[in-house]
Amino acid sequence: MSPQPHRPRRGGAGRPPPAARPAARTGLGGEQVEGRRAVRELLRARRRRIKDVWLSDTAAPDHPVVAEILDLVREQRIPLREVARGRLDAEATSEAPQGVLAHAEPLPEVDLDRLSQRVPGSPPPFLVVLDGVTDPQNLGAILRTADSAGATGVVLGRHRSVHVTPTVAKASAGAIEHVPIALVAGIPAALQSLGAAGVWTIGLDGDADQFVFDLDLATEAVALVLGAEGSGLSRLVRARCDVLAAIPQRGALASLNVGAAAAVACFDVARRRLA
Amino acid sequence: MSPQPHRPRRGGAGRPPPAARPAARTGLGGEQVEGRRAVRELLRARRRRIKDVWLSDTAAPDHPVVAEILDLVREQRIPLREVARGRLDAEATSEAPQGVLAHAEPLPEVDLDRLSQRVPGSPPPFLVVLDGVTDPQNLGAILRTADSAGATGVVLGRHRSVHVTPTVAKASAGAIEHVPIALVAGIPAALQSLGAAGVWTIGLDGDADQFVFDLDLATEAVALVLGAEGSGLSRLVRARCDVLAAIPQRGALASLNVGAAAAVACFDVARRRLA
Repeated sequence: MSPQPHRPRRGGAGRPPPAARPAARTGLGGEQVEGRRAVRELLRARRRRIKDVWLSDTAAPDHPVVAEILDLVREQRIPLREVARGRLDAEATSEAPQGVLAHAEPLPEVDLDRLSQRVPGSPPPFLVVLDGVTDPQNLGAILRTADSAGATGVVLGRHRSVHVTPTVAKASAGAIEHVPIALVAGIPAALQSLGAAGVWTIGLDGDADQFVFDLDLATEAVALVLGAEGSGLSRLVRARCDVLAAIPQRGALASLNVGAAAAVACFDVARRRLA
Repeated sequence: MSPQPHRPRRGGAGRPPPAARPAARTGLGGEQVEGRRAVRELLRARRRRIKDVWLSDTAAPDHPVVAEILDLVREQRIPLREVARGRLDAEATSEAPQGVLAHAEPLPEVDLDRLSQRVPGSPPPFLVVLDGVTDPQNLGAILRTADSAGATGVVLGRHRSVHVTPTVAKASAGAIEHVPIALVAGIPAALQSLGAAGVWTIGLDGDADQFVFDLDLATEAVALVLGAEGSGLSRLVRARCDVLAAIPQRGALASLNVGAAAAVACFDVARRRLA
């Protein structure tokens, strides 16, 4: 680490200590992207500056996605580092980086206000709000589903555990490059802002007395609100939603993975928007 | 390993070598179950004999699911082995066994014929047929979704890679104990049998020219046929399906994880059966 002489030192002479030390502002992350599809989408999207792409001998250069990565790297004149497999695996943090990773600028955040705006000529906002979903596989899968269903944005709480890690990027198959993501200080306050902007907030809740399929809101501006697997929506979030709706459970378990629940709810909105 | 004197030795004197050594008949597996929820469902379902349950000190005995496991173990008089964490983790093959595992008889298979029968007073058959889905996380997630949507059975090809491993059991959250599963020699032949039994076969195919939401078959006897992620349905399977239908893709990626696709299609059937 190089010294940073301009950063004020905590408790420096003559400088009053900050009343409450602000928590480190946690951005979206995404600076390291691993896996074939995630790296390809990073290159395709051209939304952020890419520092380099690493390739190891485990990435077969004739695999169609790897070949496309190599073409895009050449075309965009991005430094390519060919490294041994062990070197790449040591740099990687996801389980199976498939011999490809990239370093880039962090993912850009978008404002919640922008996500709630209606754009003339486009369908009304269709947002997915995650209240406490932090498992990286689930988070990545939901981002991928949201993109696929035509969601116009995803809202995450800016607490310490939300971060687009290489595992999230990989599980999203690169959807992180395409779905606009807003980070908010708190989900309950965000729901109020969405309500004020004319966006209906629909909380998925197993105990609700109506089914998600019976809602007639999907062609309006809507936000689907999903809680963490197991605990579900927090009490305050549940109270702040305009509507609560359940996914009918017909099985012995009466339990759906949060990624599957997101798929069912997102595509119910997509279905109604098609009709 | 103890010697097994009765097993014929290959190429033994005077014994002609088998013309074609038959592939080991691969059953469903499921003899080892790991993770809190999967072990609880094994105990709740009482479908198969349980040899023992192992518990390590990492399984908090006051966790509600662990407490239920302990109650069921006592009630059913199943041998309980309390072992050190290292011993349990060495026995486990899934990633996070949560300090609980069990050994049991293999999962029972059901006949395809039984799955295609209409049962008076019950909804018509609703099957999920998997053509080449072998990733254990996806397989487990789809079994869980199928149970939750009210599917009456799942059909898998009996090739070497299909096996209910502890990872599948855990990803299914124990749904393997509740959803009847048939193993078939080949999916194309199984589709013919289903057709002969009056079950409509609906293949999910991204190139189909109608959407899954537009089908009017869900209240009949139906089988949803899903291909492996990436390659999709095999050519022969696609040809044998009565109908092909797509899930509309609205995103930049135009790609849905097979588990998410299964959730969308299964709950579209569930939705129509509710109406």
